Amino acid sequence: MKTVYSEDHRLHHASAELNDGEMMPCFEKPARADQVLAEVERAELGPIIPPDDHGEAPIRRVHTDQYIDFFQSAWSRWADLGRSNDMLPLAWPPRRVQPRCPQDIDGQLGYFSFDAGAPITATTWQAVYSGAQVALSAAALLQHERQAFALCRPPGHHAGADYMGGYCYLNNAAIAAQSLLDQGARRVALLDVDYHHGNGTQDIFWTRPDVLVASIHADPRVEYPFFAGHADERGVGTGEGFNHNYPLPPGTAWAAWSQALQDALRVVAGYAPDALVISLGVDTFSGDPISQFRLQGDDYLRMGEQIGALRLPTLFVMEGGYAVAEIGLNAVNVLRGAATQKG
Amino acid sequence: MKTVYSEDHRLHHASAELNDGEMMPCFEKPARADQVLAEVERAELGPIIPPDDHGEAPIRRVHTDQYIDFFQSAWSRWADLGRSNDMLPLAWPPRRVQPRCPQDIDGQLGYFSFDAGAPITATTWQAVYSGAQVALSAAALLQHERQAFALCRPPGHHAGADYMGGYCYLNNAAIAAQSLLDQGARRVALLDVDYHHGNGTQDIFWTRPDVLVASIHADPRVEYPFFAGHADERGVGTGEGFNHNYPLPPGTAWAAWSQALQDALRVVAGYAPDALVISLGVDTFSGDPISQFRLQGDDYLRMGEQIGALRLPTLFVMEGGYAVAEIGLNAVNVLRGAATQKG
Ligand SMILES: [Zn+2]
Ligand SMILES: [Zn+2]
Repeated sequence: MKTVYSEDHRLHHASAELNDGEMMPCFEKPARADQVLAEVERAELGPIIPPDDHGEAPIRRVHTDQYIDFFQSAWSRWADLGRSNDMLPLAWPPRRVQPRCPQDIDGQLGYFSFDAGAPITATTWQAVYSGAQVALSAAALLQHERQAFALCRPPGHHAGADYMGGYCYLNNAAIAAQSLLDQGARRVALLDVDYHHGNGTQDIFWTRPDVLVASIHADPRVEYPFFAGHADERGVGTGEGFNHNYPLPPGTAWAAWSQALQDALRVVAGYAPDALVISLGVDTFSGDPISQFRLQGDDYLRMGEQIGALRLPTLFVMEGGYAVAEIGLNAVNVLRGAATQKG
Repeated sequence: MKTVYSEDHRLHHASAELNDGEMMPCFEKPARADQVLAEVERAELGPIIPPDDHGEAPIRRVHTDQYIDFFQSAWSRWADLGRSNDMLPLAWPPRRVQPRCPQDIDGQLGYFSFDAGAPITATTWQAVYSGAQVALSAAALLQHERQAFALCRPPGHHAGADYMGGYCYLNNAAIAAQSLLDQGARRVALLDVDYHHGNGTQDIFWTRPDVLVASIHADPRVEYPFFAGHADERGVGTGEGFNHNYPLPPGTAWAAWSQALQDALRVVAGYAPDALVISLGVDTFSGDPISQFRLQGDDYLRMGEQIGALRLPTLFVMEGGYAVAEIGLNAVNVLRGAATQKG
C-alpha cells in the first residue's frame, strides 16, 4: 500500500488548547505523524510518496468560500492587531440566535469555530492545505490501486463546511470522498473509526445520498464533541437513512466495538459504494491519554482485516490518536490487516 | 436614593478569562463594586441597605430549572473530577446542530455558556444568588420609593434564560423586571445603557410584549457579543416591536450616544410602563480598558437627568464598567442626575 505524506504538517504546531478550564499543551502535535511515518517505514508497508498539488478547487467543493477566505487571511489580520500568540476564539453564538458573520476577527473566530481547541498559527493554513493535498493525492491513487493511505496531520473529521474545532480545520476525508465522486464514483461510503464522533463529516453529507457516513465512537452524551453523534441522527431529506451512528459507552473494548464494526460494514456493503474512505483514528487505544475505549494493539490488525474483507477500493485517511508512542503501530496494524485482504 | 448592596459579591472572584487567544486576569473583579460603593458613600447618595432573601423562586421565573440546577451542582461535580481551577467550557454546539444537553460536566458547561469569559468558582453560585437578591430587594423598594439602586456584581445582562457568558450568570435586571410584573406592574421597560449589547435580556423577553427592551451599545458586527444586537432585531410573535436596538460605531461620544438615548426614551415613554429598569453599565467611558466609546464623566450626569426626566419609578441595576478607578464616579453620576429629576 502506498502512503502519501508531506513534511508540511510541521507547519501546524500550536502551543496550547483550553482543556479542563486551563490552557495546556496541545495533544495534537507533529510527533504524531512522525511516529506513523516511522512505523510505515519499519513495517515496509510500501512506497512513501509526496502529494501532488490539486489546488484549492477540490477543497472549496466541501468547505464554503467564506470559511476558506476567512482562514487564509485570519493570521495576518490577527498579527495586524499586534498579537503574536496562537489564535483562539472567546465567544460563540448563543442558543436561539441565527448568527450573521461579524466583521471583527474575534467575532469571526467564534463564528467559524466550535471549540477552543483548534488554534490557528502563522502557518496553519499552509499545513492544512498540504494535508488536504495529501488526502486528494491518495484518493487519486485509487484509480490504479486498491488501497492507499493518506498520512494527514492535523486531523479533519471534526471540521464542517464552515467551521473548525477538535484539532481539525479542513475535513480531509470529506474532501477526498468528494473528489472520488467528482472523478466518477457514483457512491462513496465513509466509515469513521476514530474514538470521537466525526461531527464535521456528518454535517457535510447530512442531506446527501451519494456519500454514506457511518461512525463508531464514544457516546456524545458523555464525550466530546458532545452535541452530535447520537444513534437517532440519520440524515435529512434525500440524505435520510444515509448517516449511521454507533455511540458506545466509555470502557468499550474490542468485543463490543467489533460488533458495531460488523454492523457498519454490513451497511456499507449494502450501499455498494464505488469506493470506501476510512477516517482512521486510533484514539480508541486503551493507552490513549484523552480517550476511554480499551482497544489493544492486535485489535487494529483485525479491524484492518475486516475492513479489507469488503474488497472495496479503500482510502485510509489519518485522523486522531494521541498515545504518541503507540499511534504508529496501531495505525499501521490497520493498514497491514487491510492489505492482507486486498484481492 | 437607596442603594441595596451585599458583601457576598466577593464570593465571585475568578482568576482568568480567555481573551485575545490567551488566559488573562479577569477584568470583572470585586474592586469594581468597592469603587461604586465608596462613591455612593462619598456622594451621600442615600442609605445603603442589605438585601432581603426572596429565595430562588423569582430567579427561576427568568432562568430555566435545568440551568439553575446545573449551576448549583456544577462546582461540586467539577471538584469530584479532582479539578481545583475555575471552570471554563471548551466546546459548544456547532452550527446547524439542535443540541441536547449532555451528561458530562464539560459538555454541559459548553451547553450552558456562550463564551470562555464566565468562569465558575467554588462560590460563584452564592455570589450571584446574592446579586439576584440585591436586584429583587431594590425592585421591591419601588413600592414606596421613586428610584432605587441595585449594586449588583457580577453583572447580568449577557445571561439568558439558560446560558451564562460575558461575566454574567444570572440576569439581575431581567429578574427584577419580572418581579415587578409579578408584583402588579402591567408593563415594564428595560433600558440597557451598557457598552455591550444586552443579548441575554433581549433573548429572555424576545417573544413578550409585557417587557419593552431597548439597548444602546457598540455595533455587534465589530464588538462583543458579536451575534446579537443588530438594529433589525425587533422581537417575534407577540413580542414583535417590543425590542429596540441602537448599535453605534466604535468611537461614539456623547453627541451621537445621547441622540440614541433620546430616541430610546421616547420609545419608553410611548410604551407608558409602570416601571423602568436601567441596566447601568458605565463601560461607555472613554477610559474603559475593553471598550471603544468616548463618554466623559459629566456625560453620566446628563444621562441620569434625561432618564430621570421620564419621572417613572426607576430601578438602576449595575452592569459593566471596567475602568475601576472611575466606575464609581460615573455610575453615581447617573444616579445623582436621575435623583435631581424625581418628582
Ligand atoms: Zn479522536
Ligand atoms: Zn459591558
